[in-house]
Amino acid sequence: MKLIRFGAVGNEKPGIELEDGSRIDVSAFGEDYNENFFGTEGVERLALWLKNNGPTCPIISGDARLGSPLVRPSKLVCVGLNYAQHAAESGMAIPKEPVLFFKSTSAIVGPNDDIIIPKGSEKTDWEVELAIVIGKKASYVEEANALEHIAGYVLHNDVSERAFQIEKEGQWCKGKGCDTFAPLGPFIATQDEIPNPNNLNLWLKLNGDMVQNSNTSDFIFNVQEVVSYISQFMTLLPGDVISTGTPFGVGLGFDPPKYLKPGDVVELGIDGLGTSKQITKAYK
Amino acid sequence: MKLIRFGAVGNEKPGIELEDGSRIDVSAFGEDYNENFFGTEGVERLALWLKNNGPTCPIISGDARLGSPLVRPSKLVCVGLNYAQHAAESGMAIPKEPVLFFKSTSAIVGPNDDIIIPKGSEKTDWEVELAIVIGKKASYVEEANALEHIAGYVLHNDVSERAFQIEKEGQWCKGKGCDTFAPLGPFIATQDEIPNPNNLNLWLKLNGDMVQNSNTSDFIFNVQEVVSYISQFMTLLPGDVISTGTPFGVGLGFDPPKYLKPGDVVELGIDGLGTSKQITKAYK
Repeated sequence: MKLIRFGAVGNEKPGIELEDGSRIDVSAFGEDYNENFFGTEGVERLALWLKNNGPTCPIISGDARLGSPLVRPSKLVCVGLNYAQHAAESGMAIPKEPVLFFKSTSAIVGPNDDIIIPKGSEKTDWEVELAIVIGKKASYVEEANALEHIAGYVLHNDVSERAFQIEKEGQWCKGKGCDTFAPLGPFIATQDEIPNPNNLNLWLKLNGDMVQNSNTSDFIFNVQEVVSYISQFMTLLPGDVISTGTPFGVGLGFDPPKYLKPGDVVELGIDGLGTSKQITKAYK
Repeated sequence: MKLIRFGAVGNEKPGIELEDGSRIDVSAFGEDYNENFFGTEGVERLALWLKNNGPTCPIISGDARLGSPLVRPSKLVCVGLNYAQHAAESGMAIPKEPVLFFKSTSAIVGPNDDIIIPKGSEKTDWEVELAIVIGKKASYVEEANALEHIAGYVLHNDVSERAFQIEKEGQWCKGKGCDTFAPLGPFIATQDEIPNPNNLNLWLKLNGDMVQNSNTSDFIFNVQEVVSYISQFMTLLPGDVISTGTPFGVGLGFDPPKYLKPGDVVELGIDGLGTSKQITKAYK
């Protein structure tokens, strides 16, 4: 199944994208895609409900805005430097264990919403990433059992302001949590749709030019390792999102570096997880 | 007003602590202390409602468990090294601008709940802190207007695992977001109760011995500066919590360092914000 949410900002409703690409409104199921939904086998319950009720669900207009395909989670945990070539372009050593950081959940927007360059920013950058959606509470989970805690996967642009992230004092969060810096979607592909998350092509184009083009088989730490590792430090709740890091080809790695400016068009995609497209705008 | 929440974990109800120390159940008001409550002038609406309905609210039993005095917020943003003496004991330079990091909101527990030492931890440490609760959405707020965005203040123990925080690769979040690492409360004192948040005594005792004892007048960056600064990087939502840093006297600063072990009793308090008490336990 492909879970979507659609409608105006703050008033999104749950829907499903069908095999033929059409989208249906599943508001009548009576739940949104939140912690309670994921934590009570909502994916399985919704699939059963659809067998009887799918045919009578309203079709969503093709021009409806897509929102983030899940309700704001308790946390958006990210893995830094998880592809060897990207660590090199960032001028950082290959980590011996996963590097973790948090993004603000208030940064989450729909897959095709605008990226707003923050006031004073000159180094807003892109990062295509495979993100994991947690389905079952995870605390001290073994790698061998990690996949059981996953509800699905989603495309994520981990937008980053490099001066705020690296040149300011302290931790990375200043450059990772800005508003609109986490476009998620178009949909969550439930786990059955992605038999091997550790072998997916992912790419990002800037104004039509391919700048990132890699495969998750280049992960330093794969999906199972990442879920298990994070769960040693904190409980992952149903609906929590883990973003697994970005491959080579971010703006910081160009010589000279290349950053987003108003009007730039960013398009990205991952095998089986669809594509998204953001227009870059200045803060007004 | 003093806002409390009480009852079993996950089933807390809203209440009020009265001037005489007794506590009443305000479930009949029909709202919990969440983003919507703070963002729709809930504090003012509740105060009005109490004028008519307070006398008929049920009294809460004196032995009821207190939960966190607010529903899980979108974020818990912390300021590091915000007292000069604490920066020195941590072996870090005095920052020129606020150092920010996030704690997992899943770390939040009630004020008197146990602190659980994570598996493999040998360096779990205490940090008494003044925390701010946001009342009105804050984005690019000037210092002069910052207080208008605050709903109230709350006592916070920013529990930290120093090896996870500092000795592991990457960012601090591994040692800051562990479960039970953010006891909040006993209550949120609404802003009218705390005329000057930048001049409050705060202290922490370990097994009865005073180990932290300072005043928020020693802040490097005061409450207004911190709110304004964070709002330059991300929107603060109603109900979000900002923890303003800890003064001198954490375990890391002892020679040799001194960390929490099972059975240790931590008590802390801030002028006007009450006291809390946690027992330290091993993970089971």
